[in-house]
Amino acid sequence: MSSIPENQSRIVLRKRPTTGIVAGYESEDATFAKEVAKVPRSESELKEGDVLVKVEYVSLDPAMRGWLRDARSYLPPVQIGEVMRAGGVGTVVLSRFEGLSKGDKVSGITGWQEYATLPGKACEKRKIPPGCSLLDYLGPLGSSGQTAYWGIFDVGRIKSGDVVVVTGAAGSVGSMVVQLAKMKGCKVIAIAGSEEKCKWLKESLKADEALDYKAPDFFSTYREIATKKYGYIDVIFENVGGEVLDRSLLMLKPGARIAFCGAISDYNNPKPKGLTNYQAMIAMRVKLQGFIVFDYQKRYPEAEKEIAEWLRDGRLERKFHIAQGGLEGCPQALNDLFEGKNIGKMVAKVN
Amino acid sequence: MSSIPENQSRIVLRKRPTTGIVAGYESEDATFAKEVAKVPRSESELKEGDVLVKVEYVSLDPAMRGWLRDARSYLPPVQIGEVMRAGGVGTVVLSRFEGLSKGDKVSGITGWQEYATLPGKACEKRKIPPGCSLLDYLGPLGSSGQTAYWGIFDVGRIKSGDVVVVTGAAGSVGSMVVQLAKMKGCKVIAIAGSEEKCKWLKESLKADEALDYKAPDFFSTYREIATKKYGYIDVIFENVGGEVLDRSLLMLKPGARIAFCGAISDYNNPKPKGLTNYQAMIAMRVKLQGFIVFDYQKRYPEAEKEIAEWLRDGRLERKFHIAQGGLEGCPQALNDLFEGKNIGKMVAKVN
Repeated sequence: MSSIPENQSRIVLRKRPTTGIVAGYESEDATFAKEVAKVPRSESELKEGDVLVKVEYVSLDPAMRGWLRDARSYLPPVQIGEVMRAGGVGTVVLSRFEGLSKGDKVSGITGWQEYATLPGKACEKRKIPPGCSLLDYLGPLGSSGQTAYWGIFDVGRIKSGDVVVVTGAAGSVGSMVVQLAKMKGCKVIAIAGSEEKCKWLKESLKADEALDYKAPDFFSTYREIATKKYGYIDVIFENVGGEVLDRSLLMLKPGARIAFCGAISDYNNPKPKGLTNYQAMIAMRVKLQGFIVFDYQKRYPEAEKEIAEWLRDGRLERKFHIAQGGLEGCPQALNDLFEGKNIGKMVAKVN
Repeated sequence: MSSIPENQSRIVLRKRPTTGIVAGYESEDATFAKEVAKVPRSESELKEGDVLVKVEYVSLDPAMRGWLRDARSYLPPVQIGEVMRAGGVGTVVLSRFEGLSKGDKVSGITGWQEYATLPGKACEKRKIPPGCSLLDYLGPLGSSGQTAYWGIFDVGRIKSGDVVVVTGAAGSVGSMVVQLAKMKGCKVIAIAGSEEKCKWLKESLKADEALDYKAPDFFSTYREIATKKYGYIDVIFENVGGEVLDRSLLMLKPGARIAFCGAISDYNNPKPKGLTNYQAMIAMRVKLQGFIVFDYQKRYPEAEKEIAEWLRDGRLERKFHIAQGGLEGCPQALNDLFEGKNIGKMVAKVN
C-alpha cells in the first residue's frame, strides 16, 4: 500500500490584492483559499517524464507579491484558482523520469502544496546531493544565494575597497550580500529594521556599520556615515526601494552602481512616492540596473560551487525563519515578511 | 594701435536661483549682473601659454542650470561674482602660446563675455579648421554632437531595429540623436513640444513618429504607439525627465537601456514629483545610466571625424536658434530654452 495519502492540502490564489495581502481564509477579501486535491498514488497516474515530490519546505519571498499582480512582468501572473507559485524542496516519492528515483531530494517550483507533480528534467538539474541540508537549497544554495551572488558581483561589480550599502540586509538575500561584499574586501553599510537585526549584522556577519532604519535619527546618521565617515557610496544592493533609496541617490560617488533587486517597501503601495532625487544620477554618472536572477540560470552551477565551498569552510552564515502554521500559515508568513519579522530566510514547513 | 577695446561687457552670477532663472538685470532677485571689465590689449598683458579669444558665439545649454546650484556635481558650481560658464567659439586675437596664432578659430569654455583669456593648450585641441562653420562647433561638432553620439551609441548601445524614444527631440542634442538612430536603422519615436517641432522631426529628420507632448491626448497616443504599434521600447535617450520618463518606465522591453542625459523638466523644480514607476525597472531588467559627455573627452576626435563626414555628405541636418539681444540677452535666452522656444541649438551672438 502506498504511503501517499489520497488527498492533499494546497493554497490557491483567490483574489488579487490591491494593497497588502489579506491573510486568513475567512474574509471575503482573503487573497488565498485552501483546497483539497487528489494526489497521484502510483506511477501509472503520472505522465511519462514527471515525478511526484513530497514537499518538505516552501520558500516565502518578497517577489511573490509581484507574481500576484496582473501585469506584464518576467513571469506570467499566478492565475485566479491556481496553486500559489513558490520555490520548494522535498523528496521524490514517485518517478517516471529515469534520472530520478524514489528518495532523491530535489528543489523546484513546487508551489504551496503538500505534493507537487513536476517535470523530472527540471528537478534533475536541481537535485540535492545526499547529506546536504534541504534548507540550504532554499537559502544560500537556492535562488536567494544566486540572487546575492550575481547581483553583487555581476550587476554591482564590486571591487575591494568599495563602499557598499545593502538594504534589507538581514533578509535572505541581503545577509548573503553583506558577507560576499565583506569577503571581497568592501566596506559594508548594512541597513535593516531592528536592533536585533543590526546586532546580528555587525557581530556575526561583520558588517562595518549596521543601521536601524526605524531609529528616529536614521537619515541623519546614515548620511553622516555614508558621506563623512566613508566618503560616499560606490555600490548599493537595493532590496527595499522607497525613501531610503531616494535619499541614497544623493550620497553616491561618480560612477556608482545600483544593483536593483527589489523594492519591498513599495510592493504593497498602489501610489509609491517615487524617486524624487533621480536627477542626481546624471551628474554622478550612476548606473541603476534592475535584474532578475532567473536570467543567470545557466550559470547557477558556477555560483553554487563557490557558495557550497564557503559554507563548508564556515565562511558564510545563514539563518532560517520557520513560519508559524506550516502550509496554512503561508499567507500570514508573507505578510510577516513585508513587516520584516524574519531574520534570514523565511520558509514554511509543509511535511 | 590695437583693435581690441579697452573694456568689455561680461555677465556674472549674482544670486543663485531657487526655482527658475530671474532674467533681466533690474530686479533684486536677478540671477545675473552685467559688468564692465578690462581686456588685455597686448601680448605682454597675457601669461605665457595663454591666448585672448574674441568670442563670436556662446552656447546656451540646459546643463547650465545645474552649474548654478551649490551642490556636489561633475563640475564645481559657478561662484557668485564669477563670469557665467559657457562654451563658446571665436578668434584668437592675442597669443602667447606657440601652437596658436592671431586669426585662428577655436572653441572653448569662453564664458558669457566678449573676450576670454584662455589656456592655449586647451584651445589648440579645439582648433576649428579653416573654412568650417563656427556655429557647427557649438552644435553637431561641439558638445551637443558629442553628447548625442556617445549617449546613443555607447550608453544606449542601439542596434538596428531597436525602438528608440528620444525626448527633447527638437533640441540641440535630441535632434542629433534622432538622426544618428535613424542612420543606425532604428525605429525612432521623437517627443517634442510643438507641432512645428514635430513637423521638422518627421519631415526633415525622418523620425518614424513625432509626438507633441503638449497635445491633450499625448499620453494615450504615446502609449498606444510605443506599445501596440512598435511593441515596446528598447532604448530611451532622455533629455527631459519628469512625467514622460515616469510613464515611459512602464513601456520598456526586457533589457531596455535608458541613456540618461538630462531632466530639463525638473531642473527648475525644487520638489520634483519623481519616478513613481521605478519598480518596473526590476522586472524588465532595465539599465538606467546617467552620463556626462566630458567623460568622453579623450575620444572626441573619433566622434568628430564621423560627424564631420556625415555633415559633408549632407546626412545630418542641424538648426541654430540665435537668441535675441546678444550677450545681454543670455539670461532670457536660457529661460527660453527651458520653455522650449528653440528649435535646434540655442546660441547667442556676442561679437
